[in-house]
Amino acid sequence: MSQFENTTIIKKANVYFKGKVTSHTVILSNGERKTLGIMLPGNYTFSTGDKEIMEVLGGSMDVKLPNSDCFVTYGEGTSFEVEKNSSFDLIIKEVSDYCCSYVKES
Amino acid sequence: MSQFENTTIIKKANVYFKGKVTSHTVILSNGERKTLGIMLPGNYTFSTGDKEIMEVLGGSMDVKLPNSDCFVTYGEGTSFEVEKNSSFDLIIKEVSDYCCSYVKES
Repeated sequence: MSQFENTTIIKKANVYFKGKVTSHTVILSNGERKTLGIMLPGNYTFSTGDKEIMEVLGGSMDVKLPNSDCFVTYGEGTSFEVEKNSSFDLIIKEVSDYCCSYVKES
Repeated sequence: MSQFENTTIIKKANVYFKGKVTSHTVILSNGERKTLGIMLPGNYTFSTGDKEIMEVLGGSMDVKLPNSDCFVTYGEGTSFEVEKNSSFDLIIKEVSDYCCSYVKES
């Protein structure tokens, strides 16, 4: 699926790390929230609220998941999950873009 | 209008200038195409195909329009037009985001 249809998109960008990580928020017709974003090279730590599913759309991401001791590289077309109320580390070596899905868990 | 509804959004980002300028493409229900983007500090020259209307959503842009000799600063909430088949120069001093509308002219 290369596009989302019948969505609401928030015009204003989300800006983190002085613009080295940015995204736009999309709300699907079923109410599900996603962000489409870009990361420039750098090292980042993110915290989660909801569980997140990160899909790498371009570039690659070296990811250290919660409770893991090592970084694993995720390339274009792959995805990884991050548990809710946790944090994860990223090393970005090339400009990369992603789709992040936020999963409400009961 | 802080959001677009009933739109199609292309998941893959548009990446220019090594990621210092990025955007996502949105197609409105009437077929109109827009991009929502972010610019990091830098100097850029862009070419237009269609006429463009650039709305500054955050930050500011110093703009030299075609046939102008000087830069004019456009701040948050302002917009400027660029004629079709031309080019314009931008000096970006702070992280800025924008909405660009592409206007088909007969």
